[in-house]
Amino acid sequence: MSGIVVQSIERASLEIIDGLAQCGVATVHEAQGRSGLLASHMRPIWRGARIAGSAVTISAPPGDNWMVHVAIEQLQPGDILVLAPTSPCEDGYFGDLLATSAQARGCRGLVIDAGVRDVRDLTEMAFPVWSKAIFAQGTVKNTLGSVNVPVVCAGAAVQPGDVIVADDDGVCVVPRASAADVLSAAQAREANEADKRAKLAAGILGLDMYKMRERLEREGLKYV
Amino acid sequence: MSGIVVQSIERASLEIIDGLAQCGVATVHEAQGRSGLLASHMRPIWRGARIAGSAVTISAPPGDNWMVHVAIEQLQPGDILVLAPTSPCEDGYFGDLLATSAQARGCRGLVIDAGVRDVRDLTEMAFPVWSKAIFAQGTVKNTLGSVNVPVVCAGAAVQPGDVIVADDDGVCVVPRASAADVLSAAQAREANEADKRAKLAAGILGLDMYKMRERLEREGLKYV
Amino acid sequence: MSGIVVQSIERASLEIIDGLAQCGVATVHEAQGRSGLLASHMRPIWRGARIAGSAVTISAPPGDNWMVHVAIEQLQPGDILVLAPTSPCEDGYFGDLLATSAQARGCRGLVIDAGVRDVRDLTEMAFPVWSKAIFAQGTVKNTLGSVNVPVVCAGAAVQPGDVIVADDDGVCVVPRASAADVLSAAQAREANEADKRAKLAAGILGLDMYKMRERLEREGLKYV
Amino acid sequence: MSGIVVQSIERASLEIIDGLAQCGVATVHEAQGRSGLLASHMRPIWRGARIAGSAVTISAPPGDNWMVHVAIEQLQPGDILVLAPTSPCEDGYFGDLLATSAQARGCRGLVIDAGVRDVRDLTEMAFPVWSKAIFAQGTVKNTLGSVNVPVVCAGAAVQPGDVIVADDDGVCVVPRASAADVLSAAQAREANEADKRAKLAAGILGLDMYKMRERLEREGLKYV
Amino acid sequence: MSGIVVQSIERASLEIIDGLAQCGVATVHEAQGRSGLLASHMRPIWRGARIAGSAVTISAPPGDNWMVHVAIEQLQPGDILVLAPTSPCEDGYFGDLLATSAQARGCRGLVIDAGVRDVRDLTEMAFPVWSKAIFAQGTVKNTLGSVNVPVVCAGAAVQPGDVIVADDDGVCVVPRASAADVLSAAQAREANEADKRAKLAAGILGLDMYKMRERLEREGLKYV
Amino acid sequence: MSGIVVQSIERASLEIIDGLAQCGVATVHEAQGRSGLLASHMRPIWRGARIAGSAVTISAPPGDNWMVHVAIEQLQPGDILVLAPTSPCEDGYFGDLLATSAQARGCRGLVIDAGVRDVRDLTEMAFPVWSKAIFAQGTVKNTLGSVNVPVVCAGAAVQPGDVIVADDDGVCVVPRASAADVLSAAQAREANEADKRAKLAAGILGLDMYKMRERLEREGLKYV
Repeated sequence: MSGIVVQSIERASLEIIDGLAQCGVATVHEAQGRSGLLASHMRPIWRGARIAGSAVTISAPPGDNWMVHVAIEQLQPGDILVLAPTSPCEDGYFGDLLATSAQARGCRGLVIDAGVRDVRDLTEMAFPVWSKAIFAQGTVKNTLGSVNVPVVCAGAAVQPGDVIVADDDGVCVVPRASAADVLSAAQAREANEADKRAKLAAGILGLDMYKMRERLEREGLKYV
Repeated sequence: MSGIVVQSIERASLEIIDGLAQCGVATVHEAQGRSGLLASHMRPIWRGARIAGSAVTISAPPGDNWMVHVAIEQLQPGDILVLAPTSPCEDGYFGDLLATSAQARGCRGLVIDAGVRDVRDLTEMAFPVWSKAIFAQGTVKNTLGSVNVPVVCAGAAVQPGDVIVADDDGVCVVPRASAADVLSAAQAREANEADKRAKLAAGILGLDMYKMRERLEREGLKYV
Repeated sequence: MSGIVVQSIERASLEIIDGLAQCGVATVHEAQGRSGLLASHMRPIWRGARIAGSAVTISAPPGDNWMVHVAIEQLQPGDILVLAPTSPCEDGYFGDLLATSAQARGCRGLVIDAGVRDVRDLTEMAFPVWSKAIFAQGTVKNTLGSVNVPVVCAGAAVQPGDVIVADDDGVCVVPRASAADVLSAAQAREANEADKRAKLAAGILGLDMYKMRERLEREGLKYV
Repeated sequence: MSGIVVQSIERASLEIIDGLAQCGVATVHEAQGRSGLLASHMRPIWRGARIAGSAVTISAPPGDNWMVHVAIEQLQPGDILVLAPTSPCEDGYFGDLLATSAQARGCRGLVIDAGVRDVRDLTEMAFPVWSKAIFAQGTVKNTLGSVNVPVVCAGAAVQPGDVIVADDDGVCVVPRASAADVLSAAQAREANEADKRAKLAAGILGLDMYKMRERLEREGLKYV
Repeated sequence: MSGIVVQSIERASLEIIDGLAQCGVATVHEAQGRSGLLASHMRPIWRGARIAGSAVTISAPPGDNWMVHVAIEQLQPGDILVLAPTSPCEDGYFGDLLATSAQARGCRGLVIDAGVRDVRDLTEMAFPVWSKAIFAQGTVKNTLGSVNVPVVCAGAAVQPGDVIVADDDGVCVVPRASAADVLSAAQAREANEADKRAKLAAGILGLDMYKMRERLEREGLKYV
Repeated sequence: MSGIVVQSIERASLEIIDGLAQCGVATVHEAQGRSGLLASHMRPIWRGARIAGSAVTISAPPGDNWMVHVAIEQLQPGDILVLAPTSPCEDGYFGDLLATSAQARGCRGLVIDAGVRDVRDLTEMAFPVWSKAIFAQGTVKNTLGSVNVPVVCAGAAVQPGDVIVADDDGVCVVPRASAADVLSAAQAREANEADKRAKLAAGILGLDMYKMRERLEREGLKYV
């Protein structure tokens, strides 16, 4: 089943992708019905990045990063590499040389349910990575995997070409087909938030702003 | 047993609370007999805060943040929200809107044995949070919990009104009744430390300063 | 078996040690055949340090830091303390006073498969620590351990006098006897890397630079 | 704060205790409002025991089982030992000799948020244990703890004399003062269950038996 | 996106399903190209079951088992319930009453990336369950999820109607469309194994039987 | 550094080895000064085995079981295979075919800091295994490792030819050179235990039998 490279995948428009990046992970996740989050162990190696891009997926054997080289050839500007090992692994599949190569192809970042290394260099290069581990463990180049096939990465199903949104809160995947709708919903949420924030900052309680008191009473909440 | 909001709790004086904040977690923990620490998985979402406050406790169902809204109404300036889910959970109960609301009530921070989101905003707001996870996972508002009842948070028993001390080392709870005594003991420790630090910096060994050599020999330590 | 302090250990030359520090963990690990890494849970308490030094090892009971005081007397300038508890433990064996004392002896840092505290102070002192946990939990001084005996620290066998290399990628141990050879191999790798990096930055693919295409085809990779 | 042995504690009647044992953990937990469970990592070392007893609590330092000897003297027939280490630990505090001694005092079992060893012997003796780990790691007898003080064990607050219920589903604590009421509620639940079980076995759906269809529709459930 | 029940799903034939059960998880996993395994934390609550069935999937909120009741109505003889919480959870969604109901509908077992309780009863009923935890923690019935939608369960993507194979080695999912082919491949593997087993039992080495010596030598293996 | 097979290793006598097996893990661990235990995550796949044997060690890449075939040729009757992956891995390196082959060479069991599969067959064959995981995940045969080199397995340093003792309590390694002394010490402990057990069963307290009361009082224990 492995040993396949899908060369042509559909991508969302950069306009939609960049719009989703601006909304950020928490808002996008809510906007698509509280779905699409990768597991919370996926943490940024440095803080402050907020990106979105089209997923170029990699299914790789544990401890073998051969397919990363194959995937980099498939990158287009605006893409994000998404690597899922075929069994749990925290080896350092990716370091500064691969990042240099990916960046040269317009890659916006890496999402990897495994390890990464050379994090000082990656930070200096401003190449963002969300990973399960920081681990210098080297890998081999002996066994085939696949590129641009459906994967499950950190508990989330990712299709090649899906939109990946990532920031300090973690990583969210948006199916390509619904990306435009999710963007609209996310932007609508954002419009709302400024007003809510102002009210809350002024001391108005959520209990009142969201009109929760009656329902709380009906459920039986007792003040003592 | 749930569905209760205790509206009036006793608090320690702000003078004591602020004194404990200045001593910091490690010193306070030692000063009260090496007790009161929350588990080491409770980590700050940003580094550098050192706070103390009175605990306003929340017992919340997994994945349901309704009670946070209820708890915010109970906040007084100098309080810290302490949320313990009724079963293990890492969902993002709390984000920038709730932080805005809590901050407007004088809340000094959040201690949550679950997840938190919007961490970039929370960092910019300088709202300190100690949590088990950073996770954008949204929550519902469907099931009652309780506010200001005794909870076990990250392995530590917390009564409403207890003093919470939190910094880069983690989180410590000080029973309200003993807060004044703990502060005295902590300040006495601190007074000692400057002198010890100077001696150690000058090259005097702990072996000599603490007079350990004889006891080590008695226990059978062999130099070879 | 415990209760022993070995007072004279052999060390690598500072020239070799400092050379290894400059190469960094990932390169040194590769240069010695992808071996010697400590587990990925060993994380720096602050980012940016890159150090190497001779291991002064500590085998300590869980929750008992008595042997740290004993070990500090054995430190020479350029050494690194390496503490392995005799059973899993995350207590805070080490804080700012011990760091002050160790620093006064020329110690370059601490590698501890347990907890550490006073991390704000340690950061301000620029004393680097790689640990399994940040935890304020205090320890006792009641039970003997040993100093400068072989230990297994975070999954890696460490002999006293081995060279420890540590940076943001983690920690690697280099057997003293092979340190000079590993340094040569590491420097050779580094010489190579600048050239590779330039090519990759110019858009040349790893597939071509490393001549992988033929072998991938032979293994059966299919482009679809 | 440690170094205390409380010699006289109040216990629930054996009639209530044995009644709770018969109901089992899941039923008792529900009957007291879904509270009181210890964390799911507390697993029986052998399957099939279903016990209840009065908690004789032990607060012990990590890796030090001295207080177990002290606690055994405090045991009365029908008691259960509950050991909480003062910081996370998985050492084997307890083996067949201590079990022999405890059993001779009428102890019904051990609940320990740490390790246990000699599990083959304990199984042959039919001495039930719920623990976090099975680990042969030996402990010392050097540092005081306390007996019959309030503890937090595996995330649950336990007072000495509280009723502990334990079976293959885990461990639940029932505050002594409410034990009689919880027993009544648990027995009422049990009375109900036989009837429900018969209906469900006959093919009646929970959707109908619990009259859920209308509420599901109101919440918006769509059948497609 | 939630709140949907798909009532008609396609299933593989029982002949294929039962054939896959006979082959077992390890063989089926190999036969489909080493894919389809759920994470290793999915363990049977009792040993010895080896089953296969069509997946009736449940996407449920954390701590809310309402959808299990909904799913049971959708069961046909030969089905297996597959529950994936929408965020990590170990609550006990399922116990003996639900098992009675599911068994009455011909359900062969449960695969749940969360907790289960009443395990003594489930064992006596011979109702097999593979779960992440055994935990008595009760759940609520307040929030909708979905039934028979695609889920990711313990790291594996499962479509409703896919074939689930489960035994003491864990759980494997076989896409419905390829189930017949996988069965053929699995049976071919099995035919082979008896012969191999006989040779190995007779003392013939795998090195010779699989003709590995030459390739090992070519790779550089050194006998010293 | 890898790619080496050491063909001749020294072993302890079977008389010593079998004596250690009879003492069991907990006693042997104590007898050698509370050292040598592998981590508590190393659990038997079935209960009741108590074995000892000479370690034939395997250092294997993650997800690659090629070296197991190489190691089996090196087995002599009375040996135990000890596999340590070069980075954390839970793949199923070993199943019933390899067990058949190993058993044919007189192998007594497997200790593996990774996964194992076909556990139903292994149980029926009475082939004992202590592993980190049960996981059907298949492995490849592409990358060299080494056989009979020093390894760190589950946190313990193991030399080829060391004595491995394993039972329901876990796994302990005894250095070959000290095996005879450890056996003597273990047997002395055992002789003692029968007498102690009888006294404790008769109700004599450990406090008295071990004469602890005076030292407890001196340390400040308070009875209240």
